[in-house]
Amino acid sequence: MPLVTDFEISEIDLPELNEGEILLKSLFISVDPYMRGRMTNAKSYIPPFAIGKPIDGGVVAEVIESRNPDFAAGDAVLGHLPWKEIQAVNTGNVTKLDKKVPLSYYLGILGLTGLTAYFGLLEIGKPIAGETVVVSGAAGAVGTVVCQIAKMKGCRVVAIAGSDEKKAYLKDALKVDAVLNYNKEKNCKAAIARTCPEGVDIYFDNVGGEISDAVLYNINKNARIVLCGQISLLNHMEIPVGPRPQQILVKRSALMQGFIVTDYTTRFNEGIQQLAQWLGEGKLAYRETIVKGFENLPETFIGLFKGKNIGKLLVEI
Amino acid sequence: MPLVTDFEISEIDLPELNEGEILLKSLFISVDPYMRGRMTNAKSYIPPFAIGKPIDGGVVAEVIESRNPDFAAGDAVLGHLPWKEIQAVNTGNVTKLDKKVPLSYYLGILGLTGLTAYFGLLEIGKPIAGETVVVSGAAGAVGTVVCQIAKMKGCRVVAIAGSDEKKAYLKDALKVDAVLNYNKEKNCKAAIARTCPEGVDIYFDNVGGEISDAVLYNINKNARIVLCGQISLLNHMEIPVGPRPQQILVKRSALMQGFIVTDYTTRFNEGIQQLAQWLGEGKLAYRETIVKGFENLPETFIGLFKGKNIGKLLVEI
Repeated sequence: MPLVTDFEISEIDLPELNEGEILLKSLFISVDPYMRGRMTNAKSYIPPFAIGKPIDGGVVAEVIESRNPDFAAGDAVLGHLPWKEIQAVNTGNVTKLDKKVPLSYYLGILGLTGLTAYFGLLEIGKPIAGETVVVSGAAGAVGTVVCQIAKMKGCRVVAIAGSDEKKAYLKDALKVDAVLNYNKEKNCKAAIARTCPEGVDIYFDNVGGEISDAVLYNINKNARIVLCGQISLLNHMEIPVGPRPQQILVKRSALMQGFIVTDYTTRFNEGIQQLAQWLGEGKLAYRETIVKGFENLPETFIGLFKGKNIGKLLVEI
Repeated sequence: MPLVTDFEISEIDLPELNEGEILLKSLFISVDPYMRGRMTNAKSYIPPFAIGKPIDGGVVAEVIESRNPDFAAGDAVLGHLPWKEIQAVNTGNVTKLDKKVPLSYYLGILGLTGLTAYFGLLEIGKPIAGETVVVSGAAGAVGTVVCQIAKMKGCRVVAIAGSDEKKAYLKDALKVDAVLNYNKEKNCKAAIARTCPEGVDIYFDNVGGEISDAVLYNINKNARIVLCGQISLLNHMEIPVGPRPQQILVKRSALMQGFIVTDYTTRFNEGIQQLAQWLGEGKLAYRETIVKGFENLPETFIGLFKGKNIGKLLVEI
């Protein structure tokens, strides 16, 4: 588990603005579980963070000075940028944002979080009306969106979360069919069997580990397991050990597919348009947990692994 | 591990032949690893064998008496039938065979074995010329066919097998690019890395267990793992434990898909025609290990798990 003392906040000189560049003031910075994966040397889809260099990730910022004719002070932009309060960037690294939508949404429901839910569920899960969809980490940023899209597709949705507050939110606001608080269940396998009397057709897995084992034992023939993240395992230094899933996958002709949202980069526009439409029509509830203050970035990031937040977790600068 | 003493051979009265039925004399009986899975009570794609009743499986038989106008004495048929030397069957349970092909082939290369290789590799693996395909249990009934189809598709094929005799066969007769004898490697993970310098794009997994772990650590982005069987695990009473594959699958956007050949029943004709064509053109080498004598069925079946046979294992009655 990372510690606040693993992080350092330094003051540096304000950058000089070169021709064509814009000066940005960060408004919102996203903290995401996948970032933990970049804090190791393991081969992955994205290189590790460099020790002594700023962390980088999703940032929404305001243009405070421009030496580029296409951008003006006051414009809002989105970019994959270093965690800095002020920075000069090349405009090729950012996208100008429409301010009609709350700007923080571009780091969540209309950003990689929403797209992860959208493509993972629809392209890998391929939900069919009447099927049972189980979502772990259901109250998290991705999980809350998955639950709602699955409901829109006519599925029976069983959400797994770790507190009664999350349970109430999932039941009352997101209208899922059943919620299982894994901290109150002695036997998760039996709890899944109880809440999924017709078995599990799709499992959207945000957490991994024992919760996922419990779901696996209840999958149906032709089940699809969407491997989105493995938050429960991210802080393990060794590859954790558990029951081998292969035999069950063979016996049930089931699929287990890992993905990263950038596998669908060429279709991001389609996804954002659909998510924006659902939001506009009031079909997607959206919740954020916003922590204020640049200095709170490390602690907020670490909080992701303590399972406290509901919905998307962000820091407002 | 099943023992010969777990089996019983009994003499029973010859059946009476009813109108519409045919009397069959078994010629070849297939022994297959999946049958071990039917010797437990676990939920699977096929119900367990009943204690005290004959085992059933793939049988090629000759019609020795017929009370059905569509069949005559001397016809050869294929069916999923009880292990019996002589039996009366309803003709709906059998398919008449073309005798131009060696009849044993219908239990192997032109039967479920060949179809398993064909659909598993082509429909799940989706090989692309230039990709690296690793096949475990490569000298077995399914593995030998997978290796050859992958070569025909222009892939680099790395075969895993457990003896030098198998290694020689795979190299010399099947022309695979590299063979790894897992009994002679101290570090399977390093051995895969050495024989697959460009990583693994497709892994056709017949064995499971530690060999499969070693391959997993070497998969590329967008790899496909075709879970065909898990012969190394079939005799475990509990679900065996091993390194969890999920994190690697996420990091490499990789797929792991279990299947059973009957998922493709509606396309069997297509598969059989293609396999027969390749055989006729001399593009598919085919090897059988044929043991003689009905009384040797139990021992031959158990031999599957001792890794001795090359190619398809059959009993000639």
